Amino acid sequence: MAERRPFDVLNSSLNNTVIIGMKGGYEFRGVMVAYDIHMNIVLEKAEQMRDGQVTRGMGMILLRGDSVTFISPS
Amino acid sequence: MAERRPFDVLNSSLNNTVIIGMKGGYEFRGVMVAYDIHMNIVLEKAEQMRDGQVTRGMGMILLRGDSVTFISPS
Amino acid sequence: MAERRPFDVLNSSLNNTVIIGMKGGYEFRGVMVAYDIHMNIVLEKAEQMRDGQVTRGMGMILLRGDSVTFISPS
Amino acid sequence: MAERRPFDVLNSSLNNTVIIGMKGGYEFRGVMVAYDIHMNIVLEKAEQMRDGQVTRGMGMILLRGDSVTFISPS
Amino acid sequence: MAERRPFDVLNSSLNNTVIIGMKGGYEFRGVMVAYDIHMNIVLEKAEQMRDGQVTRGMGMILLRGDSVTFISPS
Amino acid sequence: MAERRPFDVLNSSLNNTVIIGMKGGYEFRGVMVAYDIHMNIVLEKAEQMRDGQVTRGMGMILLRGDSVTFISPS
Amino acid sequence: MAERRPFDVLNSSLNNTVIIGMKGGYEFRGVMVAYDIHMNIVLEKAEQMRDGQVTRGMGMILLRGDSVTFISPS
Repeated sequence: MAERRPFDVLNSSLNNTVIIGMKGGYEFRGVMVAYDIHMNIVLEKAEQMRDGQVTRGMGMILLRGDSVTFISPS
Repeated sequence: MAERRPFDVLNSSLNNTVIIGMKGGYEFRGVMVAYDIHMNIVLEKAEQMRDGQVTRGMGMILLRGDSVTFISPS
Repeated sequence: MAERRPFDVLNSSLNNTVIIGMKGGYEFRGVMVAYDIHMNIVLEKAEQMRDGQVTRGMGMILLRGDSVTFISPS
Repeated sequence: MAERRPFDVLNSSLNNTVIIGMKGGYEFRGVMVAYDIHMNIVLEKAEQMRDGQVTRGMGMILLRGDSVTFISPS
Repeated sequence: MAERRPFDVLNSSLNNTVIIGMKGGYEFRGVMVAYDIHMNIVLEKAEQMRDGQVTRGMGMILLRGDSVTFISPS
Repeated sequence: MAERRPFDVLNSSLNNTVIIGMKGGYEFRGVMVAYDIHMNIVLEKAEQMRDGQVTRGMGMILLRGDSVTFISPS
Repeated sequence: MAERRPFDVLNSSLNNTVIIGMKGGYEFRGVMVAYDIHMNIVLEKAEQMRDGQVTRGMGMILLRGDSVTFISPS
């Protein structure tokens, strides 16, 4: 299992729903349709969340990797 | 769909209205007329927003990529 | 219009009044007389502002690009 | 013992339970199944924690190295 | 005037009194006797200031460029 | 004495107890068994501390250099 | 005087007492016995200070340059 790599999680999550943690404490949930090596991520059907509550529907959104703290398949 | 890339969102949003999230929690809404690889972004007819409320009209504005957290087509 | 680039805004704003947003939430307004690729910026007749109020006249000022969040022609 | 290196801790913790400290003060506990040179880390059976309390079950999660502050075998 | 560059302000301020803004909101005022390309700056007869009040005399001080936000001839 | 270098302190502290300051204001105390050029540090018998009080025993811990502010032999 | 450089202050302060400002607002005072190009600094007989008050004796301490904001000969 040692040969698994962190970016495998990104690749296997393509077109699936993920939760993205952002610096500042809020999160986005949506379908991940693209990413790159900087962890820039594109979600579709995105919702912004704080403390487990949906605060806003966003549609498509590009998240800048520098602000991403974690990515979790939903 | 694996070949889609995050910057495709920027390119397809040119001359369309977008919402830009900034470090510090505020946002700008406007028509994106230019961007570069650092995610420096130029908006026209920009409005500054906080908590969903427009707080100020800004006209044209250059946003420094380092301060951008997300970009969402409106 | 795709060939427009973010730094065009800086060039076209030379010798014009601009508002500069800074990390920490305050702003400067003044006449932009110089900039470089790091977004280091020089203003003349600069005023420091917070919440839309002028808090201090500064004369000439060099703003370090690392602390700049946005630049808007006034 | 001088030839020991920090990343040895990561390697020897593969497939074991670890606690990961994150910028912002919260933590994750889970089984570390992958890491890379940037300290990007993948946990399985992850739980988010704050002040020693589990606040949320997360399943699999990719933590961005830039947000990691410490890693401790549980 | 397009050929003016931000560092010209530093050079022309050598041996003159300047105000230096620092991350965290405080400032130093003193005679700038040296600087380098990272905006590391040396002041003599430096005073630390907050909210326009002198809080401490410091004599000579080396300010790390990474913490500098602005430089203004006094 | 001019030829002494900061990393000498790390080398001479190997296998001794040190206090490590972390961004965010807390500290770790433990026996330093490894470090690297990024100031990534491994402690054994580590204790987390805040305001001089031990808040938690951690056993072995890898501290990410980016979050380290100081290292002091105990 | 234009040929003076910021690091001259470090060199001329070797084996003398200095005050070091740190991100987060606290300071260290002690005898500087080593530094490097990253502004990593070693103090002996170091004392931690906040608001002008000594809060703790530290003995020898290595300060990570990334956390240093200023250095002033005492």
